Amino acid sequence: MLELAFRPDRGSDVPLPRQLADHIAGLIDSGRLPSGAKLPATREVAVGSTVARKTVAGAYEILAERGLVTAHVGQGTFVAAQRARTDGSAPTIASPAAPRTFAWAGLFARGAVTMPAALRRSEAGEYPYDFRGGRIDATSLPLRDLRWAFGRPFETRGRLEAMARHADPFGWPPLRREIARYLTARGIACVEREVAVVSGLQQAIDLVARVLVDPGDAVAIEQPGYFGAALAFASRGAQLLGVDVDGDGIDTDRLARILRVRRPKLVYVTPATQCPTGVVTSPARREALLALADEHQMPVFEDDFDCELRYAGPSLPALKAHDAAGQVVYAGTFSKILFPGLRLGYVVAARPLLERLVAARVVADFATGVVAQAAVTTLLATRGLERHVRRLRQRYATRLAALLDALAREMPDGTTWVTPRGGLHVWLTLPARIDPDRLHAAALARGIAYTRGDVFHHDGRGGEHAALSFASLEPPAIADGIARLGALAREQSAAARPARDGFGTRRRTAPRGATVARRRRTNHGVG
Amino acid sequence: MLELAFRPDRGSDVPLPRQLADHIAGLIDSGRLPSGAKLPATREVAVGSTVARKTVAGAYEILAERGLVTAHVGQGTFVAAQRARTDGSAPTIASPAAPRTFAWAGLFARGAVTMPAALRRSEAGEYPYDFRGGRIDATSLPLRDLRWAFGRPFETRGRLEAMARHADPFGWPPLRREIARYLTARGIACVEREVAVVSGLQQAIDLVARVLVDPGDAVAIEQPGYFGAALAFASRGAQLLGVDVDGDGIDTDRLARILRVRRPKLVYVTPATQCPTGVVTSPARREALLALADEHQMPVFEDDFDCELRYAGPSLPALKAHDAAGQVVYAGTFSKILFPGLRLGYVVAARPLLERLVAARVVADFATGVVAQAAVTTLLATRGLERHVRRLRQRYATRLAALLDALAREMPDGTTWVTPRGGLHVWLTLPARIDPDRLHAAALARGIAYTRGDVFHHDGRGGEHAALSFASLEPPAIADGIARLGALAREQSAAARPARDGFGTRRRTAPRGATVARRRRTNHGVG
Repeated sequence: MLELAFRPDRGSDVPLPRQLADHIAGLIDSGRLPSGAKLPATREVAVGSTVARKTVAGAYEILAERGLVTAHVGQGTFVAAQRARTDGSAPTIASPAAPRTFAWAGLFARGAVTMPAALRRSEAGEYPYDFRGGRIDATSLPLRDLRWAFGRPFETRGRLEAMARHADPFGWPPLRREIARYLTARGIACVEREVAVVSGLQQAIDLVARVLVDPGDAVAIEQPGYFGAALAFASRGAQLLGVDVDGDGIDTDRLARILRVRRPKLVYVTPATQCPTGVVTSPARREALLALADEHQMPVFEDDFDCELRYAGPSLPALKAHDAAGQVVYAGTFSKILFPGLRLGYVVAARPLLERLVAARVVADFATGVVAQAAVTTLLATRGLERHVRRLRQRYATRLAALLDALAREMPDGTTWVTPRGGLHVWLTLPARIDPDRLHAAALARGIAYTRGDVFHHDGRGGEHAALSFASLEPPAIADGIARLGALAREQSAAARPARDGFGTRRRTAPRGATVARRRRTNHGVG
Repeated sequence: MLELAFRPDRGSDVPLPRQLADHIAGLIDSGRLPSGAKLPATREVAVGSTVARKTVAGAYEILAERGLVTAHVGQGTFVAAQRARTDGSAPTIASPAAPRTFAWAGLFARGAVTMPAALRRSEAGEYPYDFRGGRIDATSLPLRDLRWAFGRPFETRGRLEAMARHADPFGWPPLRREIARYLTARGIACVEREVAVVSGLQQAIDLVARVLVDPGDAVAIEQPGYFGAALAFASRGAQLLGVDVDGDGIDTDRLARILRVRRPKLVYVTPATQCPTGVVTSPARREALLALADEHQMPVFEDDFDCELRYAGPSLPALKAHDAAGQVVYAGTFSKILFPGLRLGYVVAARPLLERLVAARVVADFATGVVAQAAVTTLLATRGLERHVRRLRQRYATRLAALLDALAREMPDGTTWVTPRGGLHVWLTLPARIDPDRLHAAALARGIAYTRGDVFHHDGRGGEHAALSFASLEPPAIADGIARLGALAREQSAAARPARDGFGTRRRTAPRGATVARRRRTNHGVG
């Protein structure tokens, strides 16, 4: 069978039939589908491309309208004869009046990604109850401090010119010094020349992928884990080895078993507050992880994305604090404690690796914007950032408490979650009788948005989970939103429990207390 | 012969013997060089790795000191027995007192780049006569306008919160609208949804490489051409097809011949002011290029990095202005007209491609910093940027004239250059009797820095050229610097001309006029 090798981009604005039509037009245009070739039956394409048959039929109709194919009843659809190109003129395949649309679909590289599920336009928009990740409490931002810090580079001509002349891809030197001080105070002994400024933590991960990962290399990641890391490694052609996470963090016994048979290029971890479960990796697991990394001479990427946001219990030292050999790549960000559009992070690494990372970033985008670098330098040097983080911790602790209270009050029994010590969200497990797709759709329709759990699994599992961020909503909105979500969940839960409530009897009208009483709150965190 | 596959990183701070030693240590550590294996002779490694023999000998000594190898007189150097690892403990290869340094060298991916030659630390530093690229006239920046534009997002809490909540990888919507207006006014009809904001033009190129280029794909580029583009495509494993540039721009006949036998994924061009020659691509060549692209259904990347900086003659419309099919990817930047650390550019592309580019940038670094986006929105909307560019054009025109005058006055005969109509530098060709390495080294030693021509050739040719930027120096400093460079060049030129001046007779004392009279200024530009 002729292989169309079409991959639908479900995050795109372009309707699927148009996508498939453009893809086939590209194949015809490039000669890979010659004149007279028979297109595969719609059913075959539908199965091979995981789209509906009517999508394929729609694509064939579009192609017929463009004059690229002809349909013969009872025989099938065939590629039409293309005008010869030997005269050097452009082949005309659309009507001469309308310019032909260039067929991009057939040209994308194998590694070209589509928009991550969590960021698809279909899920964009404003929701009154927005529990999605990536949000912050914008009302807490210190207006005066920020105004001062961002204004300073423009206070005098001398300062402006010094900044305007800066062009060092390693970063603004005063910021590198401040970061080294800031980290040394947190037990991570480092000096300026081991620090590079990056445009957010995602870039640190992507640069490590560029420097260390060849197609086919294995990379060990937490499962569930941060989808941005999985994407960055996968986009380099890495094979992702998921290592389960339990209440103590990454399962190092499982990692040890993997390391007996595979040699991953690195292991990626979020030990401070595991993303997305919120678990703090235990001291024993940390020790085991470092021992394994040393034994197998395998680099460790420590993503310390929200170490500043801690509400209960002492912070454990970073893995990097134990790293005398220079084997741990450490990365952090200022975007979580300030605002996501700041795009400012840092990476600390042994010099041979750091030089490669910065060379890769020169190719990627040369350097990080210097105005934001200068502003954060000021915020660090004047302790304005420290003061802000202290206030932020109180705010977020209150919001976390509101979310945990609301979950305990509202969610149907069988729902479980981890009580996080830090971070910005709670990782929920829905009872098996709830269809997570149905709940998610119903929630969105009622103005309640959250991140689906499968987003954090590179293999499509995890649908029974949900990540609820408490960052951007005031406590009353959190309570209200979870009451609405809980009502939906209880309703769907009841409808799915025929044995208890009688077949076909909806529990929609059951008193709320009855459900609450049966809810069981399980804390499999380490708090 | 045992293949060490070592590639020296000449841009690194780490001395070459240490680099090679770390590389071999990595091979030993990973078991790829087992105990007892004989290391290749120093000469073989030197030839295979393009390093000096004493570098290899130095590396072997370092390895012997670390206890990793042993040398046997008359027999060679052998990998020492490693401590068994079956007990799960880490192998000890350094003295137990000092922690072992992790061997990164063996772990780098095949596509991992080293620092581009133009940015190597060895060429960093401050020079009184700095003609290197990437510099700007920082004294021209409009302090008041910039202070206002960067301060505005922090003027009110409402503005700050709106900005802080922004997290759209396509860019800050008001900026996308302003860019669409700005480009439409320049003849490039586009709407907001076809525009994405990127962190400088380099990122636009890198994202296109990520989305379109698979390892082994061919990419056609101008030769000489912008090294950042060559690096971005090469780092994806592309095979670079250099297409010569003459006084009319890219040689489309040569491109047509290439297209008869190869099918490049795209052609990358800088038609407005070719980088680095400064040539304006002629209307006939533009037409031929677009016809070829259409005939072969090949995307065109139009890098319009300095279209605003034009000092003579009318601007030709961009290729993108003729692109009804959506086949041209157009990219520009604000960093050249403001300051390099701004890191703000844009890409205009057909929607199917743009969606992929933005998906790739989510993986790369999520989004561009929003404060700079908001500031440039203000500068565009209030025409502050337009006013600045007008002033900048006058300034740079004066500096360009000063450089051209100085070159005509000072450089030895046989030196040729293109008179550019725009851009920020002059592309010089040195006479064959001057050794470009010697001149460059002597110039640096006298405080004169410029970019060597081979930087703009992906195949190592072009040493006889030099790119001299006039952006960051006042006219008197330009005159002074070129007088010094000219003196060096004349001196070296005279020393290399035994036939005319008598063997061993230096022309250092010859009257300057004599040299100037014989200098021939050739303008093979189109001005």
